[in-house]
Amino acid sequence: MKTFAKLGLAAAAIALPSLGLAQDEAVAAAVPTDSVFILNTLLFLIGGFLVFFMACGFAMLEAGLVRSKNVAMQLTKNVMLFGLASIFYYLIGYNLMYPLGSWAVDGVLSGVWGPGVLEAVGVTAETADDYGYASTGSDFFFQLMFCAATASIVSGTLAERIKLWPFMIFTIILTSIIYPITASWTWGGGFVGEAGFSDFAGSTIVHSVGGWAALTGAIILGPRLGRYVDGKVMAFPGSNLSLATLGTFILWLGWFGFNGGSQLAMGSVGDVADVSRIFSNTNTAAAGGAVAAAILTQLMYKKVDLTMVLNGALAGLVSITAEPLTPTLGAATIIGAIGGILVVFTVPLLDKLKIDDVVGAIPVHLVCGIWGTIAVVFTNDGASLGSQIYGIVVIGGATVIASAVVWFLLKAIVGIRVSEEDEIAGLDMAELGMEAYPEFSKG
Amino acid sequence: MKTFAKLGLAAAAIALPSLGLAQDEAVAAAVPTDSVFILNTLLFLIGGFLVFFMACGFAMLEAGLVRSKNVAMQLTKNVMLFGLASIFYYLIGYNLMYPLGSWAVDGVLSGVWGPGVLEAVGVTAETADDYGYASTGSDFFFQLMFCAATASIVSGTLAERIKLWPFMIFTIILTSIIYPITASWTWGGGFVGEAGFSDFAGSTIVHSVGGWAALTGAIILGPRLGRYVDGKVMAFPGSNLSLATLGTFILWLGWFGFNGGSQLAMGSVGDVADVSRIFSNTNTAAAGGAVAAAILTQLMYKKVDLTMVLNGALAGLVSITAEPLTPTLGAATIIGAIGGILVVFTVPLLDKLKIDDVVGAIPVHLVCGIWGTIAVVFTNDGASLGSQIYGIVVIGGATVIASAVVWFLLKAIVGIRVSEEDEIAGLDMAELGMEAYPEFSKG
Amino acid sequence: MKTFAKLGLAAAAIALPSLGLAQDEAVAAAVPTDSVFILNTLLFLIGGFLVFFMACGFAMLEAGLVRSKNVAMQLTKNVMLFGLASIFYYLIGYNLMYPLGSWAVDGVLSGVWGPGVLEAVGVTAETADDYGYASTGSDFFFQLMFCAATASIVSGTLAERIKLWPFMIFTIILTSIIYPITASWTWGGGFVGEAGFSDFAGSTIVHSVGGWAALTGAIILGPRLGRYVDGKVMAFPGSNLSLATLGTFILWLGWFGFNGGSQLAMGSVGDVADVSRIFSNTNTAAAGGAVAAAILTQLMYKKVDLTMVLNGALAGLVSITAEPLTPTLGAATIIGAIGGILVVFTVPLLDKLKIDDVVGAIPVHLVCGIWGTIAVVFTNDGASLGSQIYGIVVIGGATVIASAVVWFLLKAIVGIRVSEEDEIAGLDMAELGMEAYPEFSKG
Repeated sequence: MKTFAKLGLAAAAIALPSLGLAQDEAVAAAVPTDSVFILNTLLFLIGGFLVFFMACGFAMLEAGLVRSKNVAMQLTKNVMLFGLASIFYYLIGYNLMYPLGSWAVDGVLSGVWGPGVLEAVGVTAETADDYGYASTGSDFFFQLMFCAATASIVSGTLAERIKLWPFMIFTIILTSIIYPITASWTWGGGFVGEAGFSDFAGSTIVHSVGGWAALTGAIILGPRLGRYVDGKVMAFPGSNLSLATLGTFILWLGWFGFNGGSQLAMGSVGDVADVSRIFSNTNTAAAGGAVAAAILTQLMYKKVDLTMVLNGALAGLVSITAEPLTPTLGAATIIGAIGGILVVFTVPLLDKLKIDDVVGAIPVHLVCGIWGTIAVVFTNDGASLGSQIYGIVVIGGATVIASAVVWFLLKAIVGIRVSEEDEIAGLDMAELGMEAYPEFSKG
Repeated sequence: MKTFAKLGLAAAAIALPSLGLAQDEAVAAAVPTDSVFILNTLLFLIGGFLVFFMACGFAMLEAGLVRSKNVAMQLTKNVMLFGLASIFYYLIGYNLMYPLGSWAVDGVLSGVWGPGVLEAVGVTAETADDYGYASTGSDFFFQLMFCAATASIVSGTLAERIKLWPFMIFTIILTSIIYPITASWTWGGGFVGEAGFSDFAGSTIVHSVGGWAALTGAIILGPRLGRYVDGKVMAFPGSNLSLATLGTFILWLGWFGFNGGSQLAMGSVGDVADVSRIFSNTNTAAAGGAVAAAILTQLMYKKVDLTMVLNGALAGLVSITAEPLTPTLGAATIIGAIGGILVVFTVPLLDKLKIDDVVGAIPVHLVCGIWGTIAVVFTNDGASLGSQIYGIVVIGGATVIASAVVWFLLKAIVGIRVSEEDEIAGLDMAELGMEAYPEFSKG
Repeated sequence: MKTFAKLGLAAAAIALPSLGLAQDEAVAAAVPTDSVFILNTLLFLIGGFLVFFMACGFAMLEAGLVRSKNVAMQLTKNVMLFGLASIFYYLIGYNLMYPLGSWAVDGVLSGVWGPGVLEAVGVTAETADDYGYASTGSDFFFQLMFCAATASIVSGTLAERIKLWPFMIFTIILTSIIYPITASWTWGGGFVGEAGFSDFAGSTIVHSVGGWAALTGAIILGPRLGRYVDGKVMAFPGSNLSLATLGTFILWLGWFGFNGGSQLAMGSVGDVADVSRIFSNTNTAAAGGAVAAAILTQLMYKKVDLTMVLNGALAGLVSITAEPLTPTLGAATIIGAIGGILVVFTVPLLDKLKIDDVVGAIPVHLVCGIWGTIAVVFTNDGASLGSQIYGIVVIGGATVIASAVVWFLLKAIVGIRVSEEDEIAGLDMAELGMEAYPEFSKG
């Protein structure tokens, strides 16, 4: 749990010097407090660049799973949404999420031109805002990447039929307002966290928020043309499974930063050992999800389905995100495997409901986000099912309502769906005037 | 050498506090022992995620070098083998490799449900199993990635004709039994290491073990249909050299973790400087291999061969893996260049023997694994040619025998090769019912 | 500024012990000097592997932006140029750039066979060359990656028509002589740095040097056949925008190491907080560049142009490289956005001048390299416009002259351009005898 870990660390930092004074021979053993600050900051920087790379993973996964006539658009959306998330999380979101930050003092404009949210250059222990924790710059960098991940989840579901700019406006609102507010309810010291809701790295707070926003959008936007015909689901196979696999591996890699960095501290023996547990559990949950999906598709369809194996790995990762620390390796494997199984069953279920999710983001991020959040009850003694469901419902409800309002407003004012002709021609030529693979003839 | 470095570090950790007491003014200079634990653990975490990414590198390299009708299968195998390696190395392999670990105490089932192989959450210096070294969780994470790399090597050689599930069963046995046992002979304090065999990061222990298992499989499985016709070798060019190049760069990147992390320590001036030497030597060996292969193919064939350049880089990396620390930059470049040359000569040699290695894994990982292990004699004063050959023969012989038994059993019981029709149609449609690039017409 | 930071750190390292003696209670808080050495070295290792990965980013970006008949060649060039840069920067460049290094003592040959430029194995605080800074091995590793990046920039501009080996000879001269000498004028304690020129991570020293070399080559080499016909610019769309996007994300990732590592120190509260600022500013500058290019192409052409968005992100990254530390997030966003705008206007301008830059490297690296260097004046109180322009002109002028001499010599002696038939057929078949995508029919 982020808040808890942060407080725990602060306590440790306060305790350290006196400990050093009390036991003279321990001086050489204790980690100096400057080093704690440095190591915690380093964790955020490493975790942050790993989670940054997830933006690339999402882009590759989605580009691989859409048809070739929509690939350039999907790439464009992924680059632009990350750019907009970076700017608007800085301008509005970060300060909304952590209300005690510098926004209240400096205001947006001074944030732009003045010292803003980051420490002054060459800050010292005496002048650092958060000396017992980590540098604000590293915290901002790390938190930003979580916010951007939320937006990346949405883009996959709505692919192949949504207009570029309305999607970008939704991204701006999601990353500057919706995510920061709902996330602050737990990680910003808010009422959901105080009610005992536990979500270590964001199964609910990041993944299911992205999933709810995607689900709401998918319902309002409607399915792709020709997807559901006479009660049948027409297969629209992804155009490039190498890219989809690349994206999955990159996401898997980035998740070590996502979950490991959420320990929020690396400056003590206990913290770094905990980060190590988290890395191992995160990996094995993905393994469990991939293997479970492979076995299940073999049993159900007599053939292994690669896209299900990929989504199974991602399902395992989302499932372990609510609590990657306390489970044993065995429990983590099983939590991930259940995630992989859920995906295999939920993908056709969504199609029955005629909810068209191009890349399977709703099964992976929403369904497994919920599952992972509930699984905390099995691994954490202090966690209560009631608190977990409370958090899921409150955060999910708020996200659905806010997203629906934005999607309906966008639909009414500018329209969110491309024309039939453009959809058939493909968004690449229609909206961008270019192709991702111009030289390769389509079969 | 892993064992040696581990013991050396433990000695250093013991020496540090007394040193601090003896020289009061040195207190500010010495690294506190907690920090040593943290920094060593951090090395494993960084090294581990880099080696994890090699799984992606292998997947991309192999997907790029097979024909397009087998790409989805090759991707599936690479994701699944990593998943299975993760689970079975945890369940069986890790405890088999390091027999003094928690397996003897907790048993497999308590490993699943109990505290298992990882430290308790919030471990302290007093309660950590291995305080003088690094967190068990980070060690497990790092070691797992080496085990998985061994399996990745095999999948490339046997591509385009092996059945999915028999290959997966082999992967389970390789990662849970064969690799852990042969690796324990050196890194687990076993008899090969005691005989003076030196293999810093695993030219023999990882790469040639993968290569021997691949060679054994390739002989038992036989070449692809139409590969050797009337004494001629038919070229089956890789379908996507961009992917193959991407995979090579990712492997090159991951190798910094592979070799650098094998220093096993980063908490002293000497260790971190050694890790730096290793990074530099690893890079220049890859450079030497790539450039040597480019020049040699230009001289021999009047044209540079990109796949040889890629395999040359990988050959350089494998060649330096047995001893990336002691060589000078110049020696490392030459060791890598000889690796690159060996690959250019060994690839056609294998074809003469009608051993069909789809991606060149045997020349790269087996031949250069042997070369790298022997090269240790030139750079390490203490190393003897006899000990090196002893290790190569014992570990190689055991791997060949064990692999052959498993391959023959699999062949007899379930069959390991797809039908002729399936092979001609491609494994993607035959075994998976899907294509990697469904929209692009084949030439 | 690299030199400054280095000196500042050395001063801090000297100050630390006496500080520890003066304030006894501060002992537990100060970072021990061994840890400073370790953490600085670690910054170079992490930064170095991130910048290494940029070589992959350049390869993917360029492979995605050339036509499919030239992809294998572009990949070959990128792997080989990195290999040659690694070898020749070691043999000649590094010692030329930092003349006080070990070259003067050991000579090239002893560098090859003797201890060379790296510390001895198991170096101690007493025997380390640069104990107050970081390990020489890590410094070499990090600096090498900058040198290689310079060469990567050139390969994109000259794609699709330059011969392989002459380009490689140019690469050798660029990485062993031109870059090391011009870089030493600022980072090696030379006269440009002493004149007050400020270029933190190399907008001018790396990026515009690569850009000038590319521009000179493009003019001497001439445009591709059929590119400029009857006063019109014929579009040669890139063959794989997924690869180009992948390359851009990888470059963006690597840039955290490029700029963050250039802080040259991570062993104090101030340094690690500065690295955090740099990460955040680097990210937001890329975001600003991407978003600005998207909006501008929408306004100018009524359609967003994905390749402009990608180049916009890279433009933002180059623009912030001269000073990623001092700007606020807002200023960094705007500096990057101006870079993105410059690219959108400069790309057609070059075409008007019939300078054929295949991937847009001149707008991105040269034009934004100049812009970023000038922008330092707005964010750094000490910087003067005169000094900045002086550095741009001196370094640029020297690069243009040296590059032109080498290009003309190569043109006169061996020829630098492939034949018309080979260019039409594509360099892959003509120069390499292989195709990157042999199975996919061309449209």
